[in-house]
Amino acid sequence: MILVLGGARSGKSAYAEALIEAEPGPWLYLATAQAWDDEMRARIALHRARRPEGWITRDVPMALAEAVAGSTGPVLVDCLTLWLTNLILAEADVPAASAALVEACAAAPGPVILVSNEVGLGIVPENALARRFRDEAGRLHQRLAARAERVVLTVAGLPLVVKPPGGTP
Amino acid sequence: MILVLGGARSGKSAYAEALIEAEPGPWLYLATAQAWDDEMRARIALHRARRPEGWITRDVPMALAEAVAGSTGPVLVDCLTLWLTNLILAEADVPAASAALVEACAAAPGPVILVSNEVGLGIVPENALARRFRDEAGRLHQRLAARAERVVLTVAGLPLVVKPPGGTP
Amino acid sequence: MILVLGGARSGKSAYAEALIEAEPGPWLYLATAQAWDDEMRARIALHRARRPEGWITRDVPMALAEAVAGSTGPVLVDCLTLWLTNLILAEADVPAASAALVEACAAAPGPVILVSNEVGLGIVPENALARRFRDEAGRLHQRLAARAERVVLTVAGLPLVVKPPGGTP
Repeated sequence: MILVLGGARSGKSAYAEALIEAEPGPWLYLATAQAWDDEMRARIALHRARRPEGWITRDVPMALAEAVAGSTGPVLVDCLTLWLTNLILAEADVPAASAALVEACAAAPGPVILVSNEVGLGIVPENALARRFRDEAGRLHQRLAARAERVVLTVAGLPLVVKPPGGTP
Repeated sequence: MILVLGGARSGKSAYAEALIEAEPGPWLYLATAQAWDDEMRARIALHRARRPEGWITRDVPMALAEAVAGSTGPVLVDCLTLWLTNLILAEADVPAASAALVEACAAAPGPVILVSNEVGLGIVPENALARRFRDEAGRLHQRLAARAERVVLTVAGLPLVVKPPGGTP
Repeated sequence: MILVLGGARSGKSAYAEALIEAEPGPWLYLATAQAWDDEMRARIALHRARRPEGWITRDVPMALAEAVAGSTGPVLVDCLTLWLTNLILAEADVPAASAALVEACAAAPGPVILVSNEVGLGIVPENALARRFRDEAGRLHQRLAARAERVVLTVAGLPLVVKPPGGTP
């Protein structure tokens, strides 16, 4: 399990795709984005256009643990930020869903790479929903990072290693 | 002196507590939070519940330098973000208070671990008070980091070393 | 080419100035700030006051590639954040200007140090212009980082190395 955190336009998806393409395919792409406006539709199209042949794409807005559990090879989840947003908007049980995801990733037969936005390094948002989202994202990242073999933070397209394969630096 | 920076829910308090518990106790916990609403009350209760026996907790919303100066063993300050907020809201002299805090930490008989939120890595806030807060926090972190023996940035519960014990990496 | 990223008040300008002053001068300072209000005027004055003798300062709100191309020694660009803001407000062609800047930096006769704010690590801004700015900044940083010899992220005045001189860590 590898967790790829990064800011907006920090190159986290491209980095994660390059990592997984180093494994033998086919690669399963679990897309959590829901195209509810034109801006999001454009972002999704841009991400799809970058992925070459050899990828199987599935739209999984919520049932991520189940989709990972059913995988047979390398999996890329892009991204946890939107998955969490979908869960919160649907008033789902976030801690239970997070725990199930962690277990599914740890038990998956192939490598699982999870991409997520780091959103906690700005000023406290004035919006209460944004504060709740930020807290849930932080907790999810901590749970996954504790079990992941590697954690990186992408900055300007480059990986800053937070947890190297052999343990804490 | 150790400075532990981190985003929201990045595990900075738990990391700092684990660091200080490696030292012989009792440990002095200087809490700067003021419970002015239910959300804050819940956060404070959560932090208190995590600390086991062996901790002495003091509420110090403003007079932090004095409290550190009066310490006789390991001290954990959690967190500077709220202390700075309290100073700004009270229209106190922030540069003078910051300078006094740095000196008190450097002169303390035991280790002093300071926890603070890194808040400067998002978009410029529209709110002028938030911009001022962000500037003051950045200046305070720079002052403390220059004198600290170690500085870490917690990401997803893991420490990214910014200043290792022996100097800049 | 060296890219110095950092949050608000993270010491990125002072770090970049110290780096360039290690080279033989005179040093060319390309300032992109436009003083459109008192807050900005105060920030500019503060930055100017810190630079000692030996610096040549030019105000370059937009034509940065041209100014870098015309340089004959060490150049410090402070900062790309404001340059990008100026381009966006002028409805200029940002990708073309970014590409021209990358080429000019790569071809410059002396070292070029570029300072920019990392702004992508907070919650998604509600303001559409802020979201666009954040995306453009991220793309620009990735382009520059791919060609730079060194990339650092300053945290509390200290450099966290993202790309060391010899390549990715």
